[in-house]
Amino acid sequence: MNQLFLVSSGPGDLDLIPPLALKAISAATDIVAYGLYIDLLGSLVEGKTQHSRELGQEIDRARLALDLAASGKTTALISSGDIGIYAMASVVFELIDRQVQGDESHPEWLDVEIEVVPGISAMQAASSSVGALLGHDFCTISLSDLLTPWETITKRVHSAGQGDFVVSFYNPVSVKRNWQLDHARDILLQYRPGSSPVVLGRNLTRLDETVRVLTLDTLSAEDVDMFTLVCIGNSESRVIHRDRNIRVYTPRGYSKKL
Amino acid sequence: MNQLFLVSSGPGDLDLIPPLALKAISAATDIVAYGLYIDLLGSLVEGKTQHSRELGQEIDRARLALDLAASGKTTALISSGDIGIYAMASVVFELIDRQVQGDESHPEWLDVEIEVVPGISAMQAASSSVGALLGHDFCTISLSDLLTPWETITKRVHSAGQGDFVVSFYNPVSVKRNWQLDHARDILLQYRPGSSPVVLGRNLTRLDETVRVLTLDTLSAEDVDMFTLVCIGNSESRVIHRDRNIRVYTPRGYSKKL
Repeated sequence: MNQLFLVSSGPGDLDLIPPLALKAISAATDIVAYGLYIDLLGSLVEGKTQHSRELGQEIDRARLALDLAASGKTTALISSGDIGIYAMASVVFELIDRQVQGDESHPEWLDVEIEVVPGISAMQAASSSVGALLGHDFCTISLSDLLTPWETITKRVHSAGQGDFVVSFYNPVSVKRNWQLDHARDILLQYRPGSSPVVLGRNLTRLDETVRVLTLDTLSAEDVDMFTLVCIGNSESRVIHRDRNIRVYTPRGYSKKL
Repeated sequence: MNQLFLVSSGPGDLDLIPPLALKAISAATDIVAYGLYIDLLGSLVEGKTQHSRELGQEIDRARLALDLAASGKTTALISSGDIGIYAMASVVFELIDRQVQGDESHPEWLDVEIEVVPGISAMQAASSSVGALLGHDFCTISLSDLLTPWETITKRVHSAGQGDFVVSFYNPVSVKRNWQLDHARDILLQYRPGSSPVVLGRNLTRLDETVRVLTLDTLSAEDVDMFTLVCIGNSESRVIHRDRNIRVYTPRGYSKKL
């Protein structure tokens, strides 16, 4: 059976990649990934045929992975974080769906067995690095308006505010696009206090990791780049200051029972 | 330094536990967990002092873990899924916060070094088991009204509907509580079609895993138990039917570019 593994490589630390992902990579002869991720994987992908593509070539990467697997090569398409969250898995299934609908001419894709291996997403690394920011109901919103209309995005930010969800912004800025984050902040400020804690996690779990804790009213797109995960507490999230150690968590309300 | 690890043991499959979690468990002399999870971990916790507590004793478990660590025993408090998502991490930090505020009399807790090890949550296992249901903006809502007022929960379900988020319901029902899920379904039906796909994942990644795909208008609390994760697609989520193989994914919209 022709096999394609969609593999999550987690936030960065190789110790956060579960054995199931390593087994999938090990079983593959061919690896498709964004070049930087291949570098991070180091010896895990040694000896395999590596097909690196640049960011922004998502459809190319998904097609290549399906073509390689359909040609009989056991293939691993790798995304950082969880491949099912703002990453390549949905692109692959969009292409499969197009083939089933007759919008592609690759019937051989439908003979590929696809297995998705989940992983740890950036929001989870950010939350655990400071404590438990995702401790109660939360949502994730991508601020990239490349594929989603900005009005849909703003509607979601309003909904996140109305529902008082902890909010993780993925793709908060890019080289060409940096005004959306400040707009999103201003929307959230209509619903929750300016003192709500914000965690900026950059290169999480990597050697050059930085984690900053600030407040919503001081959040600025200038302090954020495309490697940063922005996670904003809800109106009940709390910061514990103790010595140099800052902790941030969102209570579920157990204390009310004490 | 007195050390407490807050460790995520993932959805069930031991192959989905990353090495960082195994290292934390390995370093611990004492393990605190819900009894069933300890059983699932099997040989990983052999030779360690095991302190099992029943479900519903979350505060007891958190206190016990802090007490053990404060007494000098390297301790691992373990939750299934991601310990930072509807699990024990926020309970521990609520207790630490109470101590800092002067509402507890355990100054020794503040000398405990706490490290949180993230893991794969049930929604990620559900999404990857069917394809990529979490492929675009999503939210998670706990339907347990034990600690959160039902009006707050319904407000969040309305917001999830307004924002057209993919929605994962944690704690969808319990032995004593099963009417909330049907109410939540009816709220979502005000905003998205009855044909929206729903995935019911029970005992995900375990030997007795079952995954069912249905539609929102046929979702019923009668088909769900406390071991089930309910994940509901947004208005754009799609089902691919092909032979016995059902795939469900939420597109980010790459196809529109083709």
